[in-house]
Amino acid sequence: MQRNVRLLLAYDGTHFHGWQHQPGLRTVQAELESALRLVLRHPISVVASGRTDAGVHAAGQVANVRTDATIPADRLAHAITSRLPKDVAVLQADDVAQAFHAIRSATSKLYCYRIHNAQSRPVFGRSYVHHIWKNIDLERIQAGAAKFVGTFDFSAFASAGCIRQTMVRTILQCSAECVRDEIHIRVEGTGFLHNMVRIMVGTLLEVSKGRMSPDDITAIIESRERPNAGPTAPARGLCLEWVKYPPDILTPDAPTDTPDP
Amino acid sequence: MQRNVRLLLAYDGTHFHGWQHQPGLRTVQAELESALRLVLRHPISVVASGRTDAGVHAAGQVANVRTDATIPADRLAHAITSRLPKDVAVLQADDVAQAFHAIRSATSKLYCYRIHNAQSRPVFGRSYVHHIWKNIDLERIQAGAAKFVGTFDFSAFASAGCIRQTMVRTILQCSAECVRDEIHIRVEGTGFLHNMVRIMVGTLLEVSKGRMSPDDITAIIESRERPNAGPTAPARGLCLEWVKYPPDILTPDAPTDTPDP
Repeated sequence: MQRNVRLLLAYDGTHFHGWQHQPGLRTVQAELESALRLVLRHPISVVASGRTDAGVHAAGQVANVRTDATIPADRLAHAITSRLPKDVAVLQADDVAQAFHAIRSATSKLYCYRIHNAQSRPVFGRSYVHHIWKNIDLERIQAGAAKFVGTFDFSAFASAGCIRQTMVRTILQCSAECVRDEIHIRVEGTGFLHNMVRIMVGTLLEVSKGRMSPDDITAIIESRERPNAGPTAPARGLCLEWVKYPPDILTPDAPTDTPDP
Repeated sequence: MQRNVRLLLAYDGTHFHGWQHQPGLRTVQAELESALRLVLRHPISVVASGRTDAGVHAAGQVANVRTDATIPADRLAHAITSRLPKDVAVLQADDVAQAFHAIRSATSKLYCYRIHNAQSRPVFGRSYVHHIWKNIDLERIQAGAAKFVGTFDFSAFASAGCIRQTMVRTILQCSAECVRDEIHIRVEGTGFLHNMVRIMVGTLLEVSKGRMSPDDITAIIESRERPNAGPTAPARGLCLEWVKYPPDILTPDAPTDTPDP
């Protein structure tokens, strides 16, 4: 049976057209599969925990690949990374249980949205933040963020074209904090609709400006109408921080020996 | 008499050929002077506390300009920045005493050199760090760094072409600390020779590797011979953090009224 290998990935989304293969465009999946073919010496297809959009970053994306290659897991991360461009890296590679699947096994994910909130423009790491020079009302953002926590139909917070079997998702935490010149909005959920975090952030910024009240969030969710929510915040501020899995599938299966006669 | 205005600047040195004007090359000074001409409406020349090299960053460079323009200082930073490219910003502008001169009035400067010390490559902010994957011996770096503190002839730590009236400089502090995946080497001095911090860092890295001992630093200084020191560390890891001035010249001179008759 083939090994099942979990890859922990980081990428700077600035110059990528997102995760997923698109003919003629530079995507993380295409770059990773090219590097993997060179290392594993066979064609390969990679499954990631979710498809990040163009311009969205990942500090802890998770993917898995199945292979017969015998290269030890602890040498794999460096071997793949050395064949990747500078804006992607495999941080870690581990053999995991056969049952592990990067999408289906994920129990939750955390995204962080970074807003540079200062008069002066961000000069360093300016591709990783959305700049708002007007003063943000952190308390209003925090009050609004709390309204997202729970299990709801999030149709109002999905891009127009997003059609899924169910639009119900569970948000486990949604909080905002001030970190020096930045506001960080962190959202953990069991799953997300297309553009969901960016529309949540765009709506919270309307709350900060006083155009909406924190209580309006609940009414917008209940309306299930995208036009009632705020605009989609720019991709550059968004980063997939980590993906959580049940601990028991993060280690390889015990070898199944034939019983002694 | 013209106003004397102090500008606090930040720039990402990655795509600049350093601070100083060079015909046909993109430099911070040229970009800043272009923006200033548009705002102040007269030709201008800017003096900075020191010329940073190609690829070196600044979080707190200081410059000064003399002008008759009447735009209030608190609006100047935004007015200039809005005419600058994304990788430079004026963080603050203040009227200062006539005696203020960005180079001559400076009492000390602090540079920070950032080394990303981890197996995996830095993906975010990779233009601001030098990556060394082999484990760095922080204690040896710290022991070596302490040997730089004092007033010495630093000829051994200046690039070959650097000729000044005196090669004697005073290092007020030189320390190293570990910040997550990074080693930060901070050097404060009253002045620096060309490439001095980068050669100091390159030499400390030789100490870390065991090719030199911390005590060798003193012997290298005494030799005054550049070949005895280590290689010049890459520009990307270096950032000018701040420049210190005597507080009394950081405010405008008191108006000199004609005495009542």
